[in-house]
Formats: sequence, structure tokens, C-alpha cells
Amino acid sequence: MNLENYFISQFKSANIGDDGAFIDGMVYSKDAFFENIHFKTSWMSHYQIGYKSIMVNISDAVAMNATPKYALLSVAMPKDITKSQMRDLAKGFQDACAKYGVDIIGGDTISNIKLDITVTIVSKSNKPLMRKGLKRGDLIAYSGTLGKSAKELKKLMNLGKIHKNSKFVNIFLRDKFIYNNRRFLRVGMDISDGIFSDLQKLSLASGVGFRFYKKIQKRVGCSGEEYEMLFGFDRRFKKTLLRRAKLTKTPINIIAECVRKAYTNRCKSHHFNKN
Amino acid sequence: MNLENYFISQFKSANIGDDGAFIDGMVYSKDAFFENIHFKTSWMSHYQIGYKSIMVNISDAVAMNATPKYALLSVAMPKDITKSQMRDLAKGFQDACAKYGVDIIGGDTISNIKLDITVTIVSKSNKPLMRKGLKRGDLIAYSGTLGKSAKELKKLMNLGKIHKNSKFVNIFLRDKFIYNNRRFLRVGMDISDGIFSDLQKLSLASGVGFRFYKKIQKRVGCSGEEYEMLFGFDRRFKKTLLRRAKLTKTPINIIAECVRKAYTNRCKSHHFNKN
Repeated sequence: MNLENYFISQFKSANIGDDGAFIDGMVYSKDAFFENIHFKTSWMSHYQIGYKSIMVNISDAVAMNATPKYALLSVAMPKDITKSQMRDLAKGFQDACAKYGVDIIGGDTISNIKLDITVTIVSKSNKPLMRKGLKRGDLIAYSGTLGKSAKELKKLMNLGKIHKNSKFVNIFLRDKFIYNNRRFLRVGMDISDGIFSDLQKLSLASGVGFRFYKKIQKRVGCSGEEYEMLFGFDRRFKKTLLRRAKLTKTPINIIAECVRKAYTNRCKSHHFNKN
Repeated sequence: MNLENYFISQFKSANIGDDGAFIDGMVYSKDAFFENIHFKTSWMSHYQIGYKSIMVNISDAVAMNATPKYALLSVAMPKDITKSQMRDLAKGFQDACAKYGVDIIGGDTISNIKLDITVTIVSKSNKPLMRKGLKRGDLIAYSGTLGKSAKELKKLMNLGKIHKNSKFVNIFLRDKFIYNNRRFLRVGMDISDGIFSDLQKLSLASGVGFRFYKKIQKRVGCSGEEYEMLFGFDRRFKKTLLRRAKLTKTPINIIAECVRKAYTNRCKSHHFNKN
């Protein structure tokens, strides 16, 4: 068990274990977005940093079939940040929030040695999509393509440049697909730590293993920060889902079926400072 | 305007401006508690760090007459943290939350170069206490004594030791006084940045100034992290409040009355790294 999981294991709450906590019709989620852990300022503009920090958090809400409503920001800024960088950062927060109708209702700003952001998103959901509930025979799928994010990260680590529409800086969420198809889905989550790691979470939550239809390469399976959707569904909805996915132009890859046994992730932690 | 206020000025929301945001019967608050900004690990045990990080956030809920219900934690930990330190930190979080019946429902854990915590508290309130609403003639008071926190901070900065019951590590909140007397109060907030700074916030929110009954010394007025309550009330409730405060053993200091004009804070920012 790595140290982070050891720490998390100290906490026991019925509400911990999904992308967010679902309580009384609300979903609460919170993620950190820290300099030199999740990004470097040489990789992204302050606008992109602000924008992405919100989007990765809205992704958790979307993945639970929740509509994001409010954001609280904690922004720790280095002392040498310029007013122009601050305006860009604020604009990034605001544009991402505006795109999803989210109101920034508060938070905290402090001086620090680097730019460290945490975002809390408050969402509403009548029928949240959780990680628990897979049954043997259910099918497992993901949306879009995987592997680009790791590739782009590698390019950045080698001092290369990436395109401004790259997935690493400009995340596209699958909100329409989830909102339109909730009733056909059994479980779901976003792919933030890499699909292997995230499959393990589904496996643990539901007590099932997976029989894969074809081998997923490690460079794909361990690519984090993809923000595609990983979901499971009753196999009798297969045709319906594939047909309906076309309405939102969502590519669907059915990769496995649920079986007895468990599943173990074989990637290292995905944050680039921890390899 | 300092840089932090400049950044905050970029955001316009009707919900920003109080200790927390009040929406649909809920209060949302969020504060950072960062190493070398709010504490040093040589000053406090990991248990005390965890405990205080929760208490300073519950203070915002209490100050708004809200009952804290849920906490989301973001914990960035240095790689050399030991399992024993982690357990102590977790215990600190848990004990503070248990004291106020708060359930830790989620959050995020990452590796970082130092121990940086942010806490989001979700509370409920039927009748929140805000900063806006003071009228000319209203009286302004604070609870307890002020100035100790700055004194203890100075001691710590000079490599001295402080007692484990010191206000700097063991915060006492005025929840009973607030909950019992909400109906007699016009406005309220906790004293986290120093009473001078916090008076300015009341002044700005309500468009009033203050005539002081006696001079408050700068070492008292600029002492942050006091977590006493600053509040205003209609002068006809003066006797009632003073009498009822005794029921919860809450010392009350009436310091000023509201007048036309404005009020300007004369302290520097209180975080110890920014002087």
C-alpha cells in the first residue's frame, strides 16, 4: 500500500469511495491541483492552469451524473505572481465555471512558495452514478481514446511543447453522454489515475474481476488525467448504448466483462513527481 | 490593495463576503492551512496540525450560526512523512470533527514538498449570521480576550515553546453563545485576521464606521487567529446579551458603536511569512 492509500485507509465513512460524496441529493467533490505535482508553470499559461483546475473537478461531478452548481477555491500563490497572471488565472477559473453554469461562491487566498490550488465542487443529482453495483456478466467500457495524456506529459517532461488543444491542457468532458444515458448505466467514474488504476477501484467497490476482450497496453492503461468515462452496464443495454452514444458523438470501447475474482492495477502512481 | 485582495476583487458573486457562503439553507466555507504559512511542523505535533486545521474551519460555520455537518479534506504531504505522523494527523482531523459531529466525507491526498491542508466545511443554518446589516447606533462587541495569539506566535518565532493548551494550538469556539443568542445579534464573524482587519470587513459590508469607547492597542487589534467572535447588535439588547452570555461563561467586551463614516484597518497582513 502506498503512503497516500495508507492515509486514506485511516478514514472510514460510508460516503468515501466515489468520485464525490453523495448526500441528500447533493454531490461534494474536491481535488488538489498543485504546481510541480499536477503541472509546471512553464507548461501552461495561468489561464490554462485556472481553467484545467476547474475542469478536472467538474469531471468528478459529471462522472457521477451530477450537475455542478457551486465552486469554492483555495488559491495559494507565489509572491512573485504578477497582476496580469492573477487576472489570467481568475479568467481561467471563471470561463471554466461559466461553461458549466457554476457559481464561484467563496474560498481562500494565501501567499505561498508556489501556485497550489484546491477546488471544491457542489453539485446536484437525482440519480448519482456510483462505483458500486457491478454484477457478473456486466460489460465494461470507456469513452474516447486513452493514452494521449501520458504521451503529452512525456513530451512536456522532455521540454517539448504541446498544442493548446491538447488533452493535457484542454479537457473535454462527456457530460452529455452521461446525462442522457444514466438509466442504462450501472456504475461509472472518470479516468483520472489511469484506466488500470480506476478499474481496480470499480473492482474493489463491486467485488468483481474483469475478463478482457483484448489486451490493453501499459502505456494506455497507465495514462492518467484522461478524463474519459469508465462505466459498466447490463449487457442487454449494449446495442442501445452504442446507438445512443452516436447522438452525442461519443466513441465507446467495450473492453471487458465482469467475472468472479478481483483485479489488480499494475501501474505506478501517475503524478509525475512520484515515479 | 494587497495582492490577495486584488485577486479576490476579480470575483463577483452575491455569495462572497461572509465567513462562508449561505445558499438554500447550507453554509459552505473553505480555508487553507499551509506549512510555513499558518504553522511550522516544529511548533505543533501532527495531531495538533490536523486538529487545528479543522477547528479554524468549523469556526467559520459557528460564526455564521451554522451547524457543521460534513468535511472534505485536501491533504498534500511531504514524502518523508512517517506512518505514525499520518496516523496522528488523521486522528487530529477525526477528533476535531467528532467534537462537532462532523463526518469526513471525502477529499484528496497527494505528495508534495510540504504539509498543506485545505478543509471545506458544509454546514446547515436556518438563520445564518452575516456581516451585513449593521445600523447606526448598533453596538459592537467581541468575546473573550484578544492578543494572546500574536504573543504566542512571537514566542514561537523566537524559538520558544508554548503550552499545549495555548490558544495557538487549541482553539476554543463560542458555538454555544452564538447558537443560543442568534436572535439578539445583527451581524457576526470570527476574528481570524485580527479585530482591526475584521472590523473593516464589517464596516465595508454594512457601510458604517465605529466610535470606539476606548482605544484598542495595536498588539491586540492586529492579533490574528484569535477565533473569538466579533458581533454587532441593537443596543436595546445590551442587557439581555450581557446576562445571557453568563450562561455560557462568555466574556463580552463592548467596544464601539456604529456611526456614519467608514473604518480603515491599520495592521499588516497577519500571516507570519508576509511581514
